Amino acid sequence: MTVKKVVIVGGVAGGMSAATRLRRRSESTEIVVFDRGPYVSFANCGLPYHLGGEIADRSKLIVQSPERLRAVFNLDVRPNSEVTAIDRAARQVVVTDRNTGRVYREDYEHLILSPGAAPVVPPLPGIDRPGHFTLRTIPDMDGILAWVRSRDAKTACVVGGGYIGVEAAEQLQHLGLSVTLVEALRQILRPFDPEMVEPVHQELRSHGVELRLGHAVAGFEAAGESEQTLASVVTLKNGTRVPADVVILALGVRPETTLAAESGLEIGPARGIQVDEYLRTSDPHVWAVGDAIEVTHGVTKRPSLLALAGPANRQGRLVADNIIGPKKAYPGTLGTAIVRVFGLTAACTGANEELLRAADIPFAAVHLHPNQHAGYFPGAKPIALKLLYSPESGAVLGAQAVGPDGADKRIDVFATAIRAGMTVDDVADVELCYAPPYGSAKDPVNLAGMAAQNTRAGLVESVHWHELTGFDPTESLVLDVRDAKERDGGAIPGSVHIPLGELRHRLAELPKDKLILAHCASGQRSYNACRLLAQHGFRCRNLSGSYKTWTAGTSFQTTID
Amino acid sequence: MTVKKVVIVGGVAGGMSAATRLRRRSESTEIVVFDRGPYVSFANCGLPYHLGGEIADRSKLIVQSPERLRAVFNLDVRPNSEVTAIDRAARQVVVTDRNTGRVYREDYEHLILSPGAAPVVPPLPGIDRPGHFTLRTIPDMDGILAWVRSRDAKTACVVGGGYIGVEAAEQLQHLGLSVTLVEALRQILRPFDPEMVEPVHQELRSHGVELRLGHAVAGFEAAGESEQTLASVVTLKNGTRVPADVVILALGVRPETTLAAESGLEIGPARGIQVDEYLRTSDPHVWAVGDAIEVTHGVTKRPSLLALAGPANRQGRLVADNIIGPKKAYPGTLGTAIVRVFGLTAACTGANEELLRAADIPFAAVHLHPNQHAGYFPGAKPIALKLLYSPESGAVLGAQAVGPDGADKRIDVFATAIRAGMTVDDVADVELCYAPPYGSAKDPVNLAGMAAQNTRAGLVESVHWHELTGFDPTESLVLDVRDAKERDGGAIPGSVHIPLGELRHRLAELPKDKLILAHCASGQRSYNACRLLAQHGFRCRNLSGSYKTWTAGTSFQTTID
Repeated sequence: MTVKKVVIVGGVAGGMSAATRLRRRSESTEIVVFDRGPYVSFANCGLPYHLGGEIADRSKLIVQSPERLRAVFNLDVRPNSEVTAIDRAARQVVVTDRNTGRVYREDYEHLILSPGAAPVVPPLPGIDRPGHFTLRTIPDMDGILAWVRSRDAKTACVVGGGYIGVEAAEQLQHLGLSVTLVEALRQILRPFDPEMVEPVHQELRSHGVELRLGHAVAGFEAAGESEQTLASVVTLKNGTRVPADVVILALGVRPETTLAAESGLEIGPARGIQVDEYLRTSDPHVWAVGDAIEVTHGVTKRPSLLALAGPANRQGRLVADNIIGPKKAYPGTLGTAIVRVFGLTAACTGANEELLRAADIPFAAVHLHPNQHAGYFPGAKPIALKLLYSPESGAVLGAQAVGPDGADKRIDVFATAIRAGMTVDDVADVELCYAPPYGSAKDPVNLAGMAAQNTRAGLVESVHWHELTGFDPTESLVLDVRDAKERDGGAIPGSVHIPLGELRHRLAELPKDKLILAHCASGQRSYNACRLLAQHGFRCRNLSGSYKTWTAGTSFQTTID
Repeated sequence: MTVKKVVIVGGVAGGMSAATRLRRRSESTEIVVFDRGPYVSFANCGLPYHLGGEIADRSKLIVQSPERLRAVFNLDVRPNSEVTAIDRAARQVVVTDRNTGRVYREDYEHLILSPGAAPVVPPLPGIDRPGHFTLRTIPDMDGILAWVRSRDAKTACVVGGGYIGVEAAEQLQHLGLSVTLVEALRQILRPFDPEMVEPVHQELRSHGVELRLGHAVAGFEAAGESEQTLASVVTLKNGTRVPADVVILALGVRPETTLAAESGLEIGPARGIQVDEYLRTSDPHVWAVGDAIEVTHGVTKRPSLLALAGPANRQGRLVADNIIGPKKAYPGTLGTAIVRVFGLTAACTGANEELLRAADIPFAAVHLHPNQHAGYFPGAKPIALKLLYSPESGAVLGAQAVGPDGADKRIDVFATAIRAGMTVDDVADVELCYAPPYGSAKDPVNLAGMAAQNTRAGLVESVHWHELTGFDPTESLVLDVRDAKERDGGAIPGSVHIPLGELRHRLAELPKDKLILAHCASGQRSYNACRLLAQHGFRCRNLSGSYKTWTAGTSFQTTID
């Protein structure tokens, strides 16, 4: 289709992907890109890493200049230009040039909205005090660094434990500040289930970040006169006071829907701009992409807000294709995400337990702790891995991985498997790269699939860490099949100890009238124990993820901060 | 099904996976495992890494002892026990105890053959001289180290450039020896296409390994008296003499089919033990797994020999399940493989060009060189990536990746995609982990899918590095759209230079009557150039992988060693 003119609101991620793809599809189309901010095409996801100096050169964050975009793509890029209204009847946008104050109108044939999301700043007392910053733009980042340097800041309070909050906490700690991270929920990184995120809590604490979990902020107060450098004293609802030389507000984002809503475009149930499967809004000449829209969740099929750079970029490309034609449907978003927290990586895809429960989707879970590469190769370390699947169809519904190394690639495989509609039988059998420095002959992904497969086949029944306290001790027994040396390092209270290698000859010590809840360190040996016991007439369940997952889960439950 | 007794020939990988799975499935089955060698369940793939000391502790390579296997799994494991015949009528194997010389018979209800593969040792003059070693077993490895230490060896010649040869070369170089690697083909690592493997050649050379490619060995001669430590002088067919204190014979492996063939079991067209989809041999009471069998290639569907640890392990588990029931079919082998060569990783899955041509499968290829993670994040380095796909259906047929970092996870995703029957459209859209330390908003996998998608949609036509010389210069023109600084580092002879940013205004300099073959460094900017040129009425093709792939390919073609 010949398209004369496309106007794009927002020149980062989705907007710029749409612009460049449009140019490749149509040399003759006039393409105008407005951005409210001073920079387009900047590396949003890189901002935290300049705070700590890990990305030392600030200019690296500015991927493309308007001049270069003009030269290479013949784009008319206008930074510092805010689109304040859409006149849909006239097919015009109303623009304010923020440098000059001039207000003008620009025609469009198609309009693409890529306004992104705005940091949530709730109306708490004192929230707008100086020294408080969100972290979404290059000016935000510049502001934080200027404040920290000019005040010689020593302490920081990060409010909010999402991806940005956690990355900011890590980087400010790198920079030498003492960081306190406050989160109203009892856990950070909500896309992860609590027992999976607990090692991340511990990693933050072990690097000096103070966590205040389960505590909402009440407000921000001025410091006394003796505390010259302080930005605020952050006060929590339980009365705790956290003095901080700088405050980062990382309370999540909300889709930038003001322009769309004021123009009468439909806003969806998740409060994002509503789009159809081709990413078209309720106006056939207006399309929308990125953090501002709501998408269909790839697993729950519910309208969802998933502010992620990857989907935004692919949506931008897709809208360009759909404007020129032929049209293709957007396949939905899985929410695949990853974050580095000091020496740990936490990655996830699909739905977690919370999302599955909210969507009334039946699920089962397996936990395991396989090494990231062959155990006999130097540097082998376990990954905590959780696979969520449909007990009925075996379909993979979600996966989470936390470990020092190799978590990303396992989640990439699970994300591909979910997109392909694979079952646990399929992932048990995928043929992944194996040499000792990279994996194992049975990769962690295979092992997760096999564990789920065994459960579905009725070979073993699982018990989960949070269920253990629910069993009556007169009717059940916790059996530890680890070696004595491992047990010396800690044990589940009341458990009976028979190492796996002795179990077959000590069956007489176990009661046939009790349910045996078997565990080892990771669940692999206790699975063998369960198979042995079941075939000798015992009732038995395997503690999924075993001592490692139980420790993480109970530590999460009992830590009072 | 109740199974009284299973006998397994071969106690590594496939055999031991079958044994332990069998025990988990059936506590009452008598399971006897024979192995010709002194060790079972050892870490075959780890052997090269003990040579160089990277796996310092030899005992780590012995994963399980017969005693432990008895205690945990109630297995009757008999090392140093060679099965010399199968009496299929009587359902007995004939066994020689290699410690005592005793010959005896053992009954079976089901027999599983997991004899593995044997190193190929062709009948070359002098090949059985002292100081020549294969590398397949722990005694092989011990023998090499003992020889190297006792002779104070300074030079090694590795004959054969497959995975084992390359790993051995790397590790002997680590150990301080000067290594020459001789390979009859013009390239090492045959599962990779030549332009993909050339960076690996360069990596080996840059670490001091001398490569003799395209030269077959004529024989091995005794050294003169002045060369006391020498094992042999390896003589090549071109007359070159390679003196070496130790010789590693890594000429590939052949399936161990002698026992099966002598017992009258069918041997397949690829010369492995023939099995049906359930991995059953031509005798319903005899099953076979691992390197000894031929499998259906997952892409070409041809009977193939693919000696890989991952498939062997999963086959062992599957055969155990199939003996107990219900039966499941083996899905075929993709040949996913990976090797570390000093600072580079080379990984592949599915079919390469050679296999696709041999199977008469039409294919197209894209080459690209995306960074392993965000370009603005420290340490960004390109991965050479090749995707092979069906031009008709878009199905992914194979992928190869070579780079310092992140090659493994991209190949894992492609392997999963092939297993799932995904197309290039699907991989363009998979939603992988992205944060700056791990990837890019458009992951290399996505970019490869998009590049193939663009070709299939007719947006761009590719030209490949080896095709460039086939064009008549009077009818074509090579256009370099890189920046001047890049061009200073080298250029394709005869190419015209117009940087991408100037192209739109310098179109008049280009002839409309010639085919323009555009390139940049990696193919991304020249793709943009092609879109621009095509829409302005020029005939144009994009050099896939551009200067980087062209350099690798032509360097491969022209290097005379």
